[in-house]
Amino acid sequence: MSDKVTVLVAGSWGTALASVLAANHKEVYLWTRRPEQAAEINEHHTNEHFLPGIRLPENIIATTDMEQAVSGSKAVVIVSPSSGMRQVARSLKAFWKEDMLCIHATKGFETETMKRMSTVISEELGCKEGEIVVLSGPSHAEEVVRLCPTTVVVASADEARAVTAQGLFINNDFRVYTNRDQLGVELAGALKNIIALGAGLSDGLGFGDNAKAALLTRGLAEIARVGVELGANPLTFSGLAGLGDLVVTATSQHSRNWRAGSMLGQGKPLAEVLDSMGMVVEGIRTTEAAYAISVRLGVQMPITDQIYHVLFKGRTPRSAVEALMGRDRKTEMEAISQETWEQWHS
Amino acid sequence: MSDKVTVLVAGSWGTALASVLAANHKEVYLWTRRPEQAAEINEHHTNEHFLPGIRLPENIIATTDMEQAVSGSKAVVIVSPSSGMRQVARSLKAFWKEDMLCIHATKGFETETMKRMSTVISEELGCKEGEIVVLSGPSHAEEVVRLCPTTVVVASADEARAVTAQGLFINNDFRVYTNRDQLGVELAGALKNIIALGAGLSDGLGFGDNAKAALLTRGLAEIARVGVELGANPLTFSGLAGLGDLVVTATSQHSRNWRAGSMLGQGKPLAEVLDSMGMVVEGIRTTEAAYAISVRLGVQMPITDQIYHVLFKGRTPRSAVEALMGRDRKTEMEAISQETWEQWHS
Repeated sequence: MSDKVTVLVAGSWGTALASVLAANHKEVYLWTRRPEQAAEINEHHTNEHFLPGIRLPENIIATTDMEQAVSGSKAVVIVSPSSGMRQVARSLKAFWKEDMLCIHATKGFETETMKRMSTVISEELGCKEGEIVVLSGPSHAEEVVRLCPTTVVVASADEARAVTAQGLFINNDFRVYTNRDQLGVELAGALKNIIALGAGLSDGLGFGDNAKAALLTRGLAEIARVGVELGANPLTFSGLAGLGDLVVTATSQHSRNWRAGSMLGQGKPLAEVLDSMGMVVEGIRTTEAAYAISVRLGVQMPITDQIYHVLFKGRTPRSAVEALMGRDRKTEMEAISQETWEQWHS
Repeated sequence: MSDKVTVLVAGSWGTALASVLAANHKEVYLWTRRPEQAAEINEHHTNEHFLPGIRLPENIIATTDMEQAVSGSKAVVIVSPSSGMRQVARSLKAFWKEDMLCIHATKGFETETMKRMSTVISEELGCKEGEIVVLSGPSHAEEVVRLCPTTVVVASADEARAVTAQGLFINNDFRVYTNRDQLGVELAGALKNIIALGAGLSDGLGFGDNAKAALLTRGLAEIARVGVELGANPLTFSGLAGLGDLVVTATSQHSRNWRAGSMLGQGKPLAEVLDSMGMVVEGIRTTEAAYAISVRLGVQMPITDQIYHVLFKGRTPRSAVEALMGRDRKTEMEAISQETWEQWHS
């Protein structure tokens, strides 16, 4: 069998994952739409715009030709921005074979439909959603290419496929765990952006580490709660795709969601924040979607509720915090039902 | 009934908790062994050594007289360092009345015996361990006195007492949750220091955010695992006393455990690290104790195991990380038994 694998789209995370694969496989094809980027990667073994100062392995072969990239591959890893996922999957379709493994490493929902990435890909490829593998976890791309120890999770409803994906990626610098809760891993990766936005808001208000730690803890609990209602395993949210990713996102000033929250906390209006970011802030759309879901399902999401009102209803960040601090006296343990647990642990 | 409450020992956390109580109660007695400290608090309303630049509420009354501090109080809050807890509880005994509520806010075990603080206090006061309330969570003292929003948990096997403690402390800046898992809250507060030490080690080695986030996530999972074996509720470790406190401790350069780990990661020998700290590093003793427990109970604690070998068996930090990254291929979900869940959620 060939030892060819393929990564679609040569952004920072796609290129970093291609580098990991290049340590384990003979040929790694990296597809990009831009001929000048392909030439740079093939001739200079760099991708300066996305990973400045990094020399890439020479067995990464960049191409703008989807057929050349995909044909004969054992696995295709899609790492498109969520907004472009449907288009990339559609371009892949013509060369897609059923015996290929499809992995994606994209966080967030499709903007118009709020569908998960597995859903979008399966619709375009015509395969079963549960056969797709999602790769997620705390992973700055620059650290991965510098061989800093990194740990991720690969999840699929089809456990054998998750194990195959684990085998493709694992090496001494890149540790890979499997998980069969594909839904939970995708939800955690998207919903954690709400809490990262909230962490930025808290920092922007000048609150301290106590407030941020409380926000991460209670925030993780509430996104787990809605995840469980949607069918996820609560423990996934305590894992790498939930807690792990939340820690790096909410404590990194490089996170767009954190930055947007921080500007809002400093009193800037939403329109101005969006203008100055010049790109999509996933957490904002995700907050809107999660708020709607929490109302529809009757799940309490007090932090999401307050962030929603700050974003869309003109509530001041300070009065949002006051509302959170002033809630009824509560016990710490809330509402993960016995049924849910049994479903996952019997 | 009187509106007098008492805090024992005027360190930074004790003084901060006295300030919270002073917002809610008429008289807060703060006991200290040092007359000059008592005089400073009573005359200048400051405690400069522990909380520089902070003006304390005037209804905090400092005293070196235990009888004056305690008699007629509805609640006594003990915030001694763990090493001095037994002595403080013994001094309290003569003035202790059964209708007083006993709360403690001390993290860690008694050094010689590795007993929990509730055990130590109950042995000295002659009361039931389950009646004591433990207060814990992510809470830098300086932020609390500056009225930054802070969230903690109060836990007691006797739920009514936890609710009473909640009522004593809660206000608009200081949110208090109850939890009946007293054991879990105490274990989480102590065991999380192992992971803070590990986070320092990782930072000291120059690894990045990916490694640290993985360490926090997998570390929390393993201290929860041993906590569950000892009888705690796994969810407590995802709460404020576990995850919340771990986040502030492991990402703060003020944490002694983080600093000790960081120096070890930079290659300094343990003796030199301990010398330069000039005080107790709880996480080191706790690692030793947890290692022994994990061996005895047969609970896997791979991170604790590696830190133990770095501290006491001359393993280099780098080879410890390599050993962690090179473990067998695993699934993310491990070993919280159905029985455990049912015990807590039926």
